[in-house]
Amino acid sequence: MRDRWSTGRLEAFSDGVFAIAITLLVLEISVPERGFEHLWKGIADQWPSYLAYATSFITIGGMWMAHHAIFRRLASADGNVMRLNILLLLLVSFLPFPTKLMAEAIDTTTDAERAAVIFYGLVLLTISVVASVLWRYVAAHRDLLEPGVSDDEVQAITKLAAPNIGFNVAIVLLAFIAPQIAAFGYLLIAVIALFRQHGDTRPAPA
Amino acid sequence: MRDRWSTGRLEAFSDGVFAIAITLLVLEISVPERGFEHLWKGIADQWPSYLAYATSFITIGGMWMAHHAIFRRLASADGNVMRLNILLLLLVSFLPFPTKLMAEAIDTTTDAERAAVIFYGLVLLTISVVASVLWRYVAAHRDLLEPGVSDDEVQAITKLAAPNIGFNVAIVLLAFIAPQIAAFGYLLIAVIALFRQHGDTRPAPA
Amino acid sequence: MRDRWSTGRLEAFSDGVFAIAITLLVLEISVPERGFEHLWKGIADQWPSYLAYATSFITIGGMWMAHHAIFRRLASADGNVMRLNILLLLLVSFLPFPTKLMAEAIDTTTDAERAAVIFYGLVLLTISVVASVLWRYVAAHRDLLEPGVSDDEVQAITKLAAPNIGFNVAIVLLAFIAPQIAAFGYLLIAVIALFRQHGDTRPAPA
Amino acid sequence: MRDRWSTGRLEAFSDGVFAIAITLLVLEISVPERGFEHLWKGIADQWPSYLAYATSFITIGGMWMAHHAIFRRLASADGNVMRLNILLLLLVSFLPFPTKLMAEAIDTTTDAERAAVIFYGLVLLTISVVASVLWRYVAAHRDLLEPGVSDDEVQAITKLAAPNIGFNVAIVLLAFIAPQIAAFGYLLIAVIALFRQHGDTRPAPA
Repeated sequence: MRDRWSTGRLEAFSDGVFAIAITLLVLEISVPERGFEHLWKGIADQWPSYLAYATSFITIGGMWMAHHAIFRRLASADGNVMRLNILLLLLVSFLPFPTKLMAEAIDTTTDAERAAVIFYGLVLLTISVVASVLWRYVAAHRDLLEPGVSDDEVQAITKLAAPNIGFNVAIVLLAFIAPQIAAFGYLLIAVIALFRQHGDTRPAPA
Repeated sequence: MRDRWSTGRLEAFSDGVFAIAITLLVLEISVPERGFEHLWKGIADQWPSYLAYATSFITIGGMWMAHHAIFRRLASADGNVMRLNILLLLLVSFLPFPTKLMAEAIDTTTDAERAAVIFYGLVLLTISVVASVLWRYVAAHRDLLEPGVSDDEVQAITKLAAPNIGFNVAIVLLAFIAPQIAAFGYLLIAVIALFRQHGDTRPAPA
Repeated sequence: MRDRWSTGRLEAFSDGVFAIAITLLVLEISVPERGFEHLWKGIADQWPSYLAYATSFITIGGMWMAHHAIFRRLASADGNVMRLNILLLLLVSFLPFPTKLMAEAIDTTTDAERAAVIFYGLVLLTISVVASVLWRYVAAHRDLLEPGVSDDEVQAITKLAAPNIGFNVAIVLLAFIAPQIAAFGYLLIAVIALFRQHGDTRPAPA
Repeated sequence: MRDRWSTGRLEAFSDGVFAIAITLLVLEISVPERGFEHLWKGIADQWPSYLAYATSFITIGGMWMAHHAIFRRLASADGNVMRLNILLLLLVSFLPFPTKLMAEAIDTTTDAERAAVIFYGLVLLTISVVASVLWRYVAAHRDLLEPGVSDDEVQAITKLAAPNIGFNVAIVLLAFIAPQIAAFGYLLIAVIALFRQHGDTRPAPA
């Protein structure tokens, strides 16, 4: 018989990590001292920070909704789910670093911009891939799922958790030519992912 | 049939973000090295940091109580509630940045003071507006609410969640003339909002 | 009829703030670049940081246990409990600032040491006083308590939540003469407070 | 009769501390300004930060799973469990400091490398020892455990929570000769510990 972990503390711990990673993003935003002479301009000049903040916040928010969608269908977790989940959290917690990097690099040199935007996109891509692997693993082990989960639901989430690999790769390629436009492309992906999340049509389990 | 999300993890995640945003505020406070020669004076000179800290802490605390008041009346969330909630959290998590800015700008030049205090007020205003929109959306979709919630209650919360737009705008306008007084005005608004929050007169749902 | 708030999210939010405030303390610890030449010495030279870290960690840990002891006896909270709790959290979240200050000031000049250690003690004292007021308010409004809480229990917690004002004031006074010894005195108070916390002798409510 | 604490808030508080300590680790990672000229190289040069980040993240993740394994078998906590748990959290929260130190010291001088890697290992060792003491205390007080926990289970967890003292000490000794290799050794220990965690074969308590 396979090992089993109840999902209660797993969700609490994951929620904590998502909530903290999403909230730490703001720490990277600041106006340099010289910006205080003309503070409105100083505030406006930080637009790459706001863009990076919003993109990462909405990306993590959407990932949390996807996580929510997966785990509320889980009756229990096995050791592989636990470890894939820790890997996913490791990557989500890492996101503030490329976020800061992208915010700092935009509007410096084109070379730095390009590297930072591509690096950011590769981290996003890795997160999507791991989330997708986690769900596919669960979907392939139906005994982990709540009894009432139908095949249709499983397929619907498989599509949702899909890494958008095509779209994501396209933006990373775009970053080679036009890094600033690609940066806005990530925001667009994040917003679309947020709108693609679906709740239950079944009543929620108590 | 509309999509549904259970509110348990939504509340846990939101509580996490509120708790972290409120606790990160302290990281911005520090005494510069030259302040250690006369440390009592160095500590006293940081009064704009304490003012900004207290104002943002009480504002977020009051917003958390308003959030609590809304969500415990919710039977379930739909996709729009989820997204409005993420937008609200995005703005609340952003507040440490204008807080730091205001703390740094006060007692430098009047120009910087004015810009920072107005910027802070505009972020507060935006938070109030989004919270209000969230509640109005819920109030307009009564099937999202717990069955026992009465019209009187809905109206009472509508007033509570109201953005105080008039008062808030007045303080922002005041900031053009007297930024330091306006900064204390925000604290006053936050304290009043905290005292205006009401609990249940009904027994809480289990 | 007085307003009522259920205590579930209140506890979750408070736990979040305690957990974050306690964990942020480590961010203030670092070895300056010149310390890397003789790193063991550089690590040892940071002893004021370790002392301040341990003192604040154990103080907040003990305060969390006291908070736990109060709130599990609460059937529900009213508006005043909510506001006193937010004031308590505001002060606990503020503690990382005097902690950092004390860690930086120790082993510089005696004047700076004295100011930082006294300031730290005054913040601790304020936290104790607010916690005590919160409990006394609850104890004076028995309708807020769970039905099964006996007078003996109320008195036992009243003693526990007591501010140790005498002991605390004594250490603050000691800090005028011997700040470094006083700093260790705070650690002693924190450890004693941790050992004075008592659990239930009744079975816990489900 | 011994004092009793219910484990619900204890787990919530501990989950919070684990989640925050694990997420703060990323704050230490950054590319210095001169690294932006050749940003890909600047990103690659930060490999000691990524190594330290992954090692500490996986170590804390595994420690959280071990904590989970212990506390879900606990019917209630007594005062000693509460205090041992706070000591364990104090050490886990401290880990970001030696993590940062190791990341900064690697690839500077061999002396600094050696000191930082040994210091990191000693903190890891202390965490393992305290976790082991916590479990041994619980195992020796069977009235704290859930009624259904069998002797076999207790022995299985005793092995799991064991400090790996031998292996850990071996790596610390290795650090005297080859600090960089030892740093990878810690990662290996963390990954192995993650795979050694076991779930339940019993149905989870509700």
